[in-house]
Amino acid sequence: MSDNRPIGIFDSGLGGLTVVKQIKKILPNEDLVYLGDTARVPYGTRSAETVQKFSLEDAEFLLRFNVKIIVIACNTASSLAGNYLKKKLDIPVFEVISEASEDAVKATKNKKIGVIGTRGTVGSGAYQRTLTDIDADVQVFSKACPLFVPFIEEGEIKSEALNLVAKDYLGELKKVGVDTLIMGCTHYPIIRDIIEENIDHHKVSLIDPGKSQAVSISDYLNEKYMLNDSGKTGSRKYYVTDMNSRFEDVAEMFLGDKIHGSLKKAVLQDAKEN
Amino acid sequence: MSDNRPIGIFDSGLGGLTVVKQIKKILPNEDLVYLGDTARVPYGTRSAETVQKFSLEDAEFLLRFNVKIIVIACNTASSLAGNYLKKKLDIPVFEVISEASEDAVKATKNKKIGVIGTRGTVGSGAYQRTLTDIDADVQVFSKACPLFVPFIEEGEIKSEALNLVAKDYLGELKKVGVDTLIMGCTHYPIIRDIIEENIDHHKVSLIDPGKSQAVSISDYLNEKYMLNDSGKTGSRKYYVTDMNSRFEDVAEMFLGDKIHGSLKKAVLQDAKEN
Repeated sequence: MSDNRPIGIFDSGLGGLTVVKQIKKILPNEDLVYLGDTARVPYGTRSAETVQKFSLEDAEFLLRFNVKIIVIACNTASSLAGNYLKKKLDIPVFEVISEASEDAVKATKNKKIGVIGTRGTVGSGAYQRTLTDIDADVQVFSKACPLFVPFIEEGEIKSEALNLVAKDYLGELKKVGVDTLIMGCTHYPIIRDIIEENIDHHKVSLIDPGKSQAVSISDYLNEKYMLNDSGKTGSRKYYVTDMNSRFEDVAEMFLGDKIHGSLKKAVLQDAKEN
Repeated sequence: MSDNRPIGIFDSGLGGLTVVKQIKKILPNEDLVYLGDTARVPYGTRSAETVQKFSLEDAEFLLRFNVKIIVIACNTASSLAGNYLKKKLDIPVFEVISEASEDAVKATKNKKIGVIGTRGTVGSGAYQRTLTDIDADVQVFSKACPLFVPFIEEGEIKSEALNLVAKDYLGELKKVGVDTLIMGCTHYPIIRDIIEENIDHHKVSLIDPGKSQAVSISDYLNEKYMLNDSGKTGSRKYYVTDMNSRFEDVAEMFLGDKIHGSLKKAVLQDAKEN
């Protein structure tokens, strides 16, 4: 048994391509359709209501491709709109918070887990709730790192200024002695080096939620006999809601692979439907 | 003769409140309606087509208040959608590029003018074109400073990291010896100190486009007998398209004044009209 429909993945922007990278690695035969809502990025500073509205519109775009599952690659959308989409949609929805939290609880020894992310993700308390639901003894230390995303999107990933910003953000987490740190934003794996440098990385396990999510999706599709059995390398379609000349470079940074002019403009249906 | 209708002002976000601050100072009796499109900020990274669409929707919201003129407080929207709105609307539209350019050309002695702004503003070439239209002998040196806005919006306006970023951005302009620098983004007056520190400010005239714009609006209303003659301090209405708990603080930073819970949520008409 198999299911050769594509997997739909959306994110507020291009950062979700770090998740696509992980899915491609683990599930090379799956067809993927990616939507980055670059016209309305970032979601991290927006209200829950707005993030839910945007996320539903993103998911509806993906449904037009007859996808078998929807993956929310965005931490902010996962935390603010994950449950909302699970209720609204008839197909399985994978958000990123649960799987990363499971992996973090498995990794911690001193039960002190750090979470870094956008203001939206951290403010939602989603990781905090999910982690303590899994293990009530866990202590969670969260820190919003709102300047990381603009630095990464500008490609300023080696600068001394970013290092100062990272030192400032991560200092508290280092001080309380977390032994596990969830990189709760799709962008952060790109600056893993700088994060490691500013946290005691010989003692700290870094959790990449995109990786946790990819493993979980693979397990699910296996279990439900929903894998693509074509035996061919999957096709990949990349859509964005707004295009600019720098996007291809930024996309390739996140994907860790060439995009070859295949980024296409998507038109969401919100305007017609409301 | 007079015209007691309000003045409509829009911006991609809250930065345009630095322009409101200038207008309030010069035209204290005018009623003002401000719209910050916080649900879709920033405009600086979006395509011209998208910025035009958003700007028209912003202007249409203001027209519901029977405004007498529309002020585009946003440099990106001015450069990418200024002419577009002037053609589309029946009332006068004030963009920010022309007035700041006039002031810069008046100020420069060595005919070397620097322009800093978002990628959108700088990439549009609008200041470059406008400045050389006014004086063909002027040399324009532009530099996009995309990390300034996130630092300012995070209130990180005194940090050493920002200073390093500013030194990096402004180094080239300092080197070529500009004697006039246009702060081509509404946010920048907030970090005027840091900009001055990293450019040779004893020799360089800093141009604040919001101030240029306010003077120009005042002159126009005077000349056309369109000033508000009520003799009372004008009313001020502040709308945003998305609300979050930090906006009031950020708004007060830009406005340099208290907002007292008067920030209201606006619903644009795009969804119904398209």
